Amino acid sequence: MTAKFIVIEGLEGAGKSTAMAICQQFLRQHEVDFVQTREPGGTPLAESLRDLIKQQHVEKVAAESELLMMYAARAQLLHNVIRPALDKGQWVLADRHDMSSQAYQGGGRGLPISTLSSLADIVLKGLKPNLTLYLDIPPQVGLARAKGRGELDRIELEALSFFERTRARYLQLAEEDEHCVTINANQSIEQVHADIIRALEQFFQQVRG
Amino acid sequence: MTAKFIVIEGLEGAGKSTAMAICQQFLRQHEVDFVQTREPGGTPLAESLRDLIKQQHVEKVAAESELLMMYAARAQLLHNVIRPALDKGQWVLADRHDMSSQAYQGGGRGLPISTLSSLADIVLKGLKPNLTLYLDIPPQVGLARAKGRGELDRIELEALSFFERTRARYLQLAEEDEHCVTINANQSIEQVHADIIRALEQFFQQVRG
Repeated sequence: MTAKFIVIEGLEGAGKSTAMAICQQFLRQHEVDFVQTREPGGTPLAESLRDLIKQQHVEKVAAESELLMMYAARAQLLHNVIRPALDKGQWVLADRHDMSSQAYQGGGRGLPISTLSSLADIVLKGLKPNLTLYLDIPPQVGLARAKGRGELDRIELEALSFFERTRARYLQLAEEDEHCVTINANQSIEQVHADIIRALEQFFQQVRG
Repeated sequence: MTAKFIVIEGLEGAGKSTAMAICQQFLRQHEVDFVQTREPGGTPLAESLRDLIKQQHVEKVAAESELLMMYAARAQLLHNVIRPALDKGQWVLADRHDMSSQAYQGGGRGLPISTLSSLADIVLKGLKPNLTLYLDIPPQVGLARAKGRGELDRIELEALSFFERTRARYLQLAEEDEHCVTINANQSIEQVHADIIRALEQFFQQVRG
Protein backbone atom coordinates (compact mmCIF):
# COMPACT_ATOMS: atom_id res chain seq x y z
CA MET A 1 0.00 0.00 0.00
CA THR A 2 1.45 3.38 -0.98
CA ALA A 3 1.75 6.01 1.73
CA LYS A 4 -1.39 8.02 2.44
CA PHE A 5 -1.97 11.67 3.35
CA ILE A 6 -4.62 12.23 6.04
CA VAL A 7 -5.74 15.73 7.01
CA ILE A 8 -7.77 16.98 9.99
CA GLU A 9 -9.68 20.20 9.33
CA GLY A 10 -12.09 22.44 11.20
CA LEU A 11 -12.68 25.73 12.97
CA GLU A 12 -11.03 26.81 16.22
CA GLY A 13 -12.31 24.67 19.08
CA ALA A 14 -13.67 21.94 16.79
CA GLY A 15 -11.47 19.36 18.52
CA LYS A 16 -8.65 18.95 16.00
CA SER A 17 -6.04 18.14 18.67
CA THR A 18 -8.21 15.36 20.08
CA ALA A 19 -8.88 14.07 16.58
CA MET A 20 -5.12 14.10 15.83
CA ALA A 21 -4.51 12.02 18.99
CA ILE A 22 -7.21 9.52 17.98
CA CYS A 23 -5.71 9.20 14.48
CA GLN A 24 -2.20 8.76 15.87
CA GLN A 25 -3.33 5.95 18.13
CA PHE A 26 -5.25 4.31 15.28
CA LEU A 27 -2.24 4.47 12.93
CA ARG A 28 0.09 3.06 15.62
CA GLN A 29 -2.34 0.23 16.33
CA HIS A 30 -2.28 -0.59 12.63
CA GLU A 31 1.55 -0.36 12.60
CA VAL A 32 1.59 2.46 10.09
CA ASP A 33 4.82 4.48 9.92
CA PHE A 34 3.78 8.15 9.79
CA VAL A 35 4.91 11.72 10.34
CA GLN A 36 2.73 14.39 11.86
CA THR A 37 2.51 17.98 10.63
CA ARG A 38 0.67 21.15 11.47
CA GLU A 39 -0.12 24.18 9.32
CA PRO A 40 0.83 26.85 9.12
CA GLY A 41 4.17 25.55 10.37
CA GLY A 42 5.94 22.25 10.62
CA THR A 43 9.46 23.36 9.60
CA PRO A 44 11.63 26.01 11.30
CA LEU A 45 10.98 28.59 8.56
CA ALA A 46 7.28 27.67 8.33
CA GLU A 47 6.97 28.05 12.12
CA SER A 48 8.50 31.55 11.84
CA LEU A 49 5.86 32.32 9.22
CA ARG A 50 3.20 30.88 11.56
CA ASP A 51 4.30 33.39 14.22
CA LEU A 52 4.06 36.26 11.71
CA ILE A 53 0.62 35.09 10.56
CA LYS A 54 -0.84 34.69 14.05
CA GLN A 55 0.63 37.63 15.92
CA GLN A 56 -0.92 41.07 16.17
CA HIS A 57 0.78 43.72 14.04
CA VAL A 58 0.91 47.50 14.35
CA GLU A 59 -0.38 47.66 10.78
CA LYS A 60 -3.38 46.01 9.08
CA VAL A 61 -2.40 42.71 7.48
CA ALA A 62 -3.57 42.65 3.85
CA ALA A 63 -5.70 39.58 3.04
CA GLU A 64 -3.35 38.72 0.16
CA SER A 65 -0.30 38.93 2.45
CA GLU A 66 -1.91 36.55 4.94
CA LEU A 67 -2.77 34.15 2.12
CA LEU A 68 0.71 34.30 0.57
CA MET A 69 2.39 33.70 3.94
CA MET A 70 0.15 30.65 4.39
CA TYR A 71 1.19 29.28 1.01
CA ALA A 72 4.87 30.14 1.60
CA ALA A 73 4.73 28.06 4.78
CA ARG A 74 2.85 25.29 2.95
CA ALA A 75 5.39 25.19 0.11
CA GLN A 76 8.19 24.84 2.65
CA LEU A 77 6.38 22.04 4.51
CA LEU A 78 5.59 20.22 1.28
CA HIS A 79 9.17 20.39 -0.01
CA ASN A 80 10.91 19.52 3.23
CA VAL A 81 8.48 17.24 5.09
CA ILE A 82 5.33 16.03 3.31
CA ARG A 83 6.74 14.99 -0.09
CA PRO A 84 9.95 13.43 1.31
CA ALA A 85 7.84 11.41 3.78
CA LEU A 86 5.37 10.18 1.15
CA ASP A 87 8.27 9.38 -1.20
CA LYS A 88 9.85 7.23 1.53
CA GLY A 89 6.55 5.43 2.12
CA GLN A 90 5.70 7.21 5.36
CA TRP A 91 2.12 8.33 5.85
CA VAL A 92 1.43 11.94 6.71
CA LEU A 93 -1.08 12.98 9.37
CA ALA A 94 -1.73 16.72 9.07
CA ASP A 95 -3.33 19.19 11.46
CA ARG A 96 -4.75 21.51 8.76
CA HIS A 97 -3.73 21.77 5.11
CA ASP A 98 -4.95 23.49 1.95
CA MET A 99 -8.66 23.31 2.84
CA SER A 100 -7.97 25.74 5.70
CA SER A 101 -6.75 28.41 3.26
CA GLN A 102 -9.73 27.84 1.01
CA ALA A 103 -12.11 28.14 3.96
CA TYR A 104 -10.47 30.95 5.98
CA GLN A 105 -8.89 33.14 3.32
CA GLY A 106 -11.33 32.20 0.55
CA GLY A 107 -14.57 31.95 2.57
CA GLY A 108 -13.74 34.06 5.64
CA ARG A 109 -11.73 36.83 3.99
CA GLY A 110 -13.63 36.63 0.71
CA LEU A 111 -10.58 36.29 -1.56
CA PRO A 112 -11.52 35.11 -5.07
CA ILE A 113 -11.65 31.37 -5.75
CA SER A 114 -9.43 31.97 -8.81
CA THR A 115 -6.71 33.33 -6.48
CA LEU A 116 -6.93 30.27 -4.26
CA SER A 117 -6.85 27.96 -7.30
CA SER A 118 -3.77 29.66 -8.76
CA LEU A 119 -1.85 29.32 -5.50
CA ALA A 120 -2.94 25.72 -5.01
CA ASP A 121 -1.70 24.92 -8.54
CA ILE A 122 1.66 26.62 -7.90
CA VAL A 123 2.29 25.05 -4.49
CA LEU A 124 0.49 21.69 -4.37
CA LYS A 125 1.16 20.61 -7.97
CA GLY A 126 -1.76 18.21 -7.85
CA LEU A 127 -1.11 16.66 -4.42
CA LYS A 128 -4.42 15.91 -2.69
CA PRO A 129 -5.13 14.31 0.69
CA ASN A 130 -6.35 10.72 0.52
CA LEU A 131 -8.63 11.37 3.47
CA THR A 132 -9.81 14.59 5.10
CA LEU A 133 -11.76 14.54 8.34
CA TYR A 134 -13.63 17.83 8.59
CA LEU A 135 -14.81 18.47 12.14
CA ASP A 136 -17.91 20.61 11.80
CA ILE A 137 -18.97 22.86 14.64
CA PRO A 138 -21.02 26.08 14.95
CA PRO A 139 -18.49 28.93 15.30
CA GLN A 140 -19.95 30.23 18.57
CA VAL A 141 -19.49 26.78 20.16
CA GLY A 142 -15.94 26.37 18.84
CA LEU A 143 -14.89 29.90 19.78
CA ALA A 144 -16.22 29.48 23.31
CA ARG A 145 -14.07 26.35 23.66
CA ALA A 146 -11.04 28.13 22.16
CA LYS A 147 -11.49 31.08 24.50
CA GLY A 148 -11.55 28.69 27.45
CA ARG A 149 -8.05 27.55 26.45
CA GLY A 150 -6.50 31.02 26.76
CA GLU A 151 -5.62 34.04 24.69
CA LEU A 152 -6.84 34.19 21.10
CA ASP A 153 -4.49 34.97 18.20
CA ARG A 154 -5.00 37.59 15.47
CA ILE A 155 -7.20 35.36 13.31
CA GLU A 156 -9.16 33.91 16.24
CA LEU A 157 -10.11 37.48 17.19
CA GLU A 158 -12.11 37.98 13.99
CA ALA A 159 -15.85 38.67 14.18
CA LEU A 160 -18.32 35.78 14.35
CA SER A 161 -19.45 36.52 10.77
CA PHE A 162 -15.90 35.74 9.57
CA PHE A 163 -16.13 32.25 11.08
CA GLU A 164 -19.64 31.76 9.73
CA ARG A 165 -18.35 32.43 6.21
CA THR A 166 -15.40 30.14 6.91
CA ARG A 167 -17.67 27.33 8.10
CA ALA A 168 -20.01 27.75 5.12
CA ARG A 169 -17.04 27.34 2.75
CA TYR A 170 -15.78 24.34 4.74
CA LEU A 171 -19.18 22.64 4.43
CA GLN A 172 -19.31 23.33 0.70
CA LEU A 173 -15.77 22.02 0.12
CA ALA A 174 -16.45 18.92 2.25
CA GLU A 175 -19.61 18.24 0.24
CA GLU A 176 -17.72 18.49 -3.07
CA ASP A 177 -14.74 16.35 -2.04
CA GLU A 178 -15.37 12.61 -2.21
CA HIS A 179 -12.28 12.02 -0.03
CA CYS A 180 -13.61 14.20 2.77
CA VAL A 181 -15.75 12.93 5.67
CA THR A 182 -17.69 15.48 7.71
CA ILE A 183 -17.74 14.68 11.43
CA ASN A 184 -20.33 16.37 13.63
CA ALA A 185 -18.04 17.81 16.30
CA ASN A 186 -20.92 19.26 18.31
CA GLN A 187 -21.58 15.96 20.09
CA SER A 188 -20.18 14.20 23.16
CA ILE A 189 -16.45 13.39 23.04
CA GLU A 190 -17.38 9.67 23.00
CA GLN A 191 -19.62 10.09 19.95
CA VAL A 192 -17.05 12.20 18.04
CA HIS A 193 -14.41 9.58 18.93
CA ALA A 194 -16.61 6.79 17.60
CA ASP A 195 -17.35 8.71 14.36
CA ILE A 196 -13.64 9.34 13.73
CA ILE A 197 -12.77 5.67 14.31
CA ARG A 198 -15.57 4.62 11.95
CA ALA A 199 -14.27 6.95 9.22
CA LEU A 200 -10.72 5.64 9.66
CA GLU A 201 -11.89 2.00 9.54
CA GLN A 202 -13.85 2.65 6.35
CA PHE A 203 -10.80 4.35 4.84
CA PHE A 204 -8.58 1.40 5.77
CA GLN A 205 -11.06 -1.03 4.23
CA GLN A 206 -11.06 0.98 1.00
CA VAL A 207 -7.31 1.41 0.66
CA ARG A 208 -6.53 -2.14 1.77
CA GLY A 209 -9.52 -3.66 -0.01
CA MET B 1 0.03 65.58 -13.11
CA THR B 2 -1.02 62.32 -11.43
CA ALA B 3 1.45 60.71 -9.05
CA LYS B 4 4.10 58.51 -10.64
CA PHE B 5 5.73 55.26 -9.58
CA ILE B 6 9.50 55.11 -10.23
CA VAL B 7 11.49 51.92 -9.60
CA ILE B 8 15.24 51.31 -9.40
CA GLU B 9 16.28 47.76 -10.32
CA GLY B 10 19.51 45.81 -10.68
CA LEU B 11 21.83 43.16 -9.31
CA GLU B 12 23.73 43.40 -6.02
CA GLY B 13 26.42 46.05 -6.31
CA ALA B 14 24.86 47.70 -9.36
CA GLY B 15 24.64 51.00 -7.48
CA LYS B 16 20.95 51.11 -6.55
CA SER B 17 21.55 53.11 -3.35
CA THR B 18 23.46 55.77 -5.25
CA ALA B 19 20.76 55.83 -7.92
CA MET B 20 18.08 56.21 -5.22
CA ALA B 21 19.98 59.18 -3.78
CA ILE B 22 20.24 60.79 -7.23
CA CYS B 23 16.51 60.30 -7.84
CA GLN B 24 15.62 61.70 -4.41
CA GLN B 25 17.64 64.82 -5.07
CA PHE B 26 16.12 65.21 -8.53
CA LEU B 27 12.56 64.86 -7.19
CA ARG B 28 13.23 67.36 -4.39
CA GLN B 29 14.70 69.83 -6.86
CA HIS B 30 11.50 69.50 -8.88
CA GLU B 31 9.39 69.92 -5.72
CA VAL B 32 7.78 66.53 -6.09
CA ASP B 33 6.17 65.09 -2.93
CA PHE B 34 7.24 61.44 -2.76
CA VAL B 35 7.62 58.44 -0.48
CA GLN B 36 10.50 56.02 -0.70
CA THR B 37 10.21 52.23 -0.42
CA ARG B 38 12.44 49.19 -0.56
CA GLU B 39 11.61 45.58 -1.35
CA PRO B 40 11.36 43.16 0.13
CA GLY B 41 10.29 45.27 3.08
CA GLY B 42 8.99 48.76 3.67
CA THR B 43 6.37 47.99 6.35
CA PRO B 44 6.99 46.36 9.76
CA LEU B 45 5.54 43.00 8.63
CA ALA B 46 7.25 43.21 5.23
CA GLU B 47 10.57 43.93 6.98
CA SER B 48 10.07 40.80 9.13
CA LEU B 49 9.52 38.87 5.91
CA ARG B 50 12.68 40.48 4.48
CA ASP B 51 14.64 39.10 7.43
CA LEU B 52 13.19 35.60 6.86
CA ILE B 53 13.98 35.81 3.13
CA LYS B 54 17.56 37.00 3.55
CA GLN B 55 18.75 35.03 6.57
CA GLN B 56 20.39 31.62 6.46
CA HIS B 57 18.13 28.77 7.57
CA VAL B 58 18.93 25.32 8.96
CA GLU B 59 16.74 23.91 6.18
CA LYS B 60 16.79 24.44 2.42
CA VAL B 61 14.38 27.24 1.44
CA ALA B 62 12.07 26.01 -1.35
CA ALA B 63 12.09 28.31 -4.40
CA GLU B 64 8.31 28.63 -4.18
CA SER B 65 8.51 29.63 -0.48
CA GLU B 66 11.04 32.34 -1.28
CA LEU B 67 8.83 33.61 -4.09
CA LEU B 68 5.65 33.58 -1.98
CA MET B 69 7.37 35.42 0.89
CA MET B 70 8.49 38.06 -1.64
CA TYR B 71 4.92 38.51 -2.87
CA ALA B 72 3.49 38.48 0.68
CA ALA B 73 5.84 41.37 1.51
CA ARG B 74 4.95 43.11 -1.77
CA ALA B 75 1.19 42.78 -1.12
CA GLN B 76 1.65 44.32 2.31
CA LEU B 77 3.73 47.21 0.93
CA LEU B 78 1.23 47.84 -1.87
CA HIS B 79 -1.78 47.88 0.47
CA ASN B 80 -0.24 49.95 3.23
CA VAL B 81 2.25 52.24 1.48
CA ILE B 82 2.35 52.34 -2.33
CA ARG B 83 -1.37 52.54 -3.17
CA PRO B 84 -2.26 54.95 -0.34
CA ALA B 85 0.60 57.24 -1.44
CA LEU B 86 -0.38 57.21 -5.13
CA ASP B 87 -4.04 57.73 -4.16
CA LYS B 88 -3.03 60.83 -2.16
CA GLY B 89 -1.01 62.18 -5.10
CA GLN B 90 2.40 61.32 -3.65
CA TRP B 91 4.96 59.82 -6.00
CA VAL B 92 6.64 56.56 -5.04
CA LEU B 93 10.38 55.97 -5.45
CA ALA B 94 11.09 52.26 -5.01
CA ASP B 95 14.32 50.38 -4.40
CA ARG B 96 13.30 47.15 -6.21
CA HIS B 97 9.78 46.00 -7.11
CA ASP B 98 8.18 43.23 -9.15
CA MET B 99 10.92 43.06 -11.79
CA SER B 100 13.27 41.74 -9.06
CA SER B 101 11.04 38.70 -8.49
CA GLN B 102 10.76 38.08 -12.20
CA ALA B 103 14.56 38.30 -12.59
CA TYR B 104 15.74 36.52 -9.41
CA GLN B 105 13.04 33.93 -8.79
CA GLY B 106 12.00 33.60 -12.44
CA GLY B 107 15.39 33.88 -14.15
CA GLY B 108 17.78 32.95 -11.33
CA ARG B 109 15.77 30.19 -9.65
CA GLY B 110 14.12 29.09 -12.89
CA LEU B 111 10.52 29.22 -11.64
CA PRO B 112 7.98 29.12 -14.51
CA ILE B 113 6.91 32.42 -16.07
CA SER B 114 3.27 31.30 -15.59
CA THR B 115 3.87 31.16 -11.82
CA LEU B 116 5.29 34.67 -11.80
CA SER B 117 2.41 35.94 -13.93
CA SER B 118 -0.22 34.41 -11.64
CA LEU B 119 1.32 36.02 -8.57
CA ALA B 120 1.74 39.38 -10.29
CA ASP B 121 -1.96 39.27 -11.27
CA ILE B 122 -3.03 38.43 -7.71
CA VAL B 123 -0.86 41.02 -5.98
CA LEU B 124 -0.30 43.91 -8.38
CA LYS B 125 -3.78 43.97 -9.95
CA GLY B 126 -2.45 45.80 -12.99
CA LEU B 127 -0.27 48.38 -11.22
CA LYS B 128 2.86 49.07 -13.28
CA PRO B 129 5.76 51.46 -12.67
CA ASN B 130 5.71 54.60 -14.83
CA LEU B 131 9.50 54.48 -15.03
CA THR B 132 12.00 51.75 -14.21
CA LEU B 133 15.72 52.45 -14.21
CA TYR B 134 17.50 49.12 -14.63
CA LEU B 135 21.16 49.39 -13.63
CA ASP B 136 22.95 46.76 -15.68
CA ILE B 137 26.22 45.32 -14.45
CA PRO B 138 28.12 42.05 -15.01
CA PRO B 139 27.47 39.90 -11.91
CA GLN B 140 31.15 39.42 -11.10
CA VAL B 141 31.64 43.21 -10.96
CA GLY B 142 28.52 43.78 -8.86
CA LEU B 143 29.26 40.92 -6.46
CA ALA B 144 32.84 42.14 -5.93
CA ARG B 145 31.41 45.55 -4.95
CA ALA B 146 28.78 43.94 -2.69
CA LYS B 147 31.43 41.78 -0.99
CA GLY B 148 33.48 44.90 -0.32
CA ARG B 149 30.53 46.26 1.70
CA GLY B 150 30.45 43.35 4.18
CA GLU B 151 28.79 40.04 4.78
CA LEU B 152 26.57 38.61 2.04
CA ASP B 153 23.02 37.37 2.74
CA ARG B 154 21.50 34.02 1.75
CA ILE B 155 20.62 35.10 -1.79
CA GLU B 156 23.85 37.02 -2.37
CA LEU B 157 25.75 33.79 -1.59
CA GLU B 158 24.31 32.03 -4.66
CA ALA B 159 26.67 30.84 -7.42
CA LEU B 160 27.71 33.20 -10.21
CA SER B 161 25.54 31.25 -12.68
CA PHE B 162 22.45 32.21 -10.62
CA PHE B 163 23.25 35.90 -11.09
CA GLU B 164 24.03 35.38 -14.78
CA ARG B 165 20.54 33.91 -15.27
CA THR B 166 19.10 36.77 -13.20
CA ARG B 167 20.89 39.38 -15.30
CA ALA B 168 19.83 37.72 -18.57
CA ARG B 169 16.18 37.89 -17.45
CA TYR B 170 16.62 41.49 -16.32
CA LEU B 171 17.98 42.45 -19.76
CA GLN B 172 15.11 40.66 -21.50
CA LEU B 173 12.46 42.31 -19.30
CA ALA B 174 14.07 45.74 -19.73
CA GLU B 175 14.07 45.26 -23.50
CA GLU B 176 10.37 44.34 -23.53
CA ASP B 177 9.20 47.17 -21.23
CA GLU B 178 8.82 50.51 -22.96
CA HIS B 179 8.78 52.22 -19.55
CA CYS B 180 12.17 50.79 -18.58
CA VAL B 181 15.50 52.51 -19.26
CA THR B 182 18.66 50.40 -19.08
CA ILE B 183 21.59 52.25 -17.51
CA ASN B 184 25.10 50.89 -18.02
CA ALA B 185 26.25 50.72 -14.39
CA ASN B 186 29.72 49.48 -15.30
CA GLN B 187 31.00 53.01 -15.95
CA SER B 188 32.44 55.81 -13.82
CA ILE B 189 30.12 57.15 -11.10
CA GLU B 190 30.01 60.46 -12.98
CA GLN B 191 28.85 58.82 -16.20
CA VAL B 192 26.20 56.68 -14.41
CA HIS B 193 25.02 59.82 -12.59
CA ALA B 194 24.70 61.69 -15.90
CA ASP B 195 22.80 58.80 -17.53
CA ILE B 196 20.33 58.63 -14.64
CA ILE B 197 19.72 62.40 -14.75
CA ARG B 198 19.18 62.22 -18.51
CA ALA B 199 16.61 59.41 -18.09
CA LEU B 200 14.79 61.39 -15.38
CA GLU B 201 14.76 64.55 -17.48
CA GLN B 202 13.34 62.69 -20.47
CA PHE B 203 10.69 61.13 -18.22
CA PHE B 204 9.73 64.55 -16.83
CA GLN B 205 9.48 65.97 -20.34
CA GLN B 206 7.15 63.12 -21.34
CA VAL B 207 4.86 63.25 -18.31
CA ARG B 208 4.78 67.05 -18.19
CA GLY B 209 4.69 67.48 -21.95
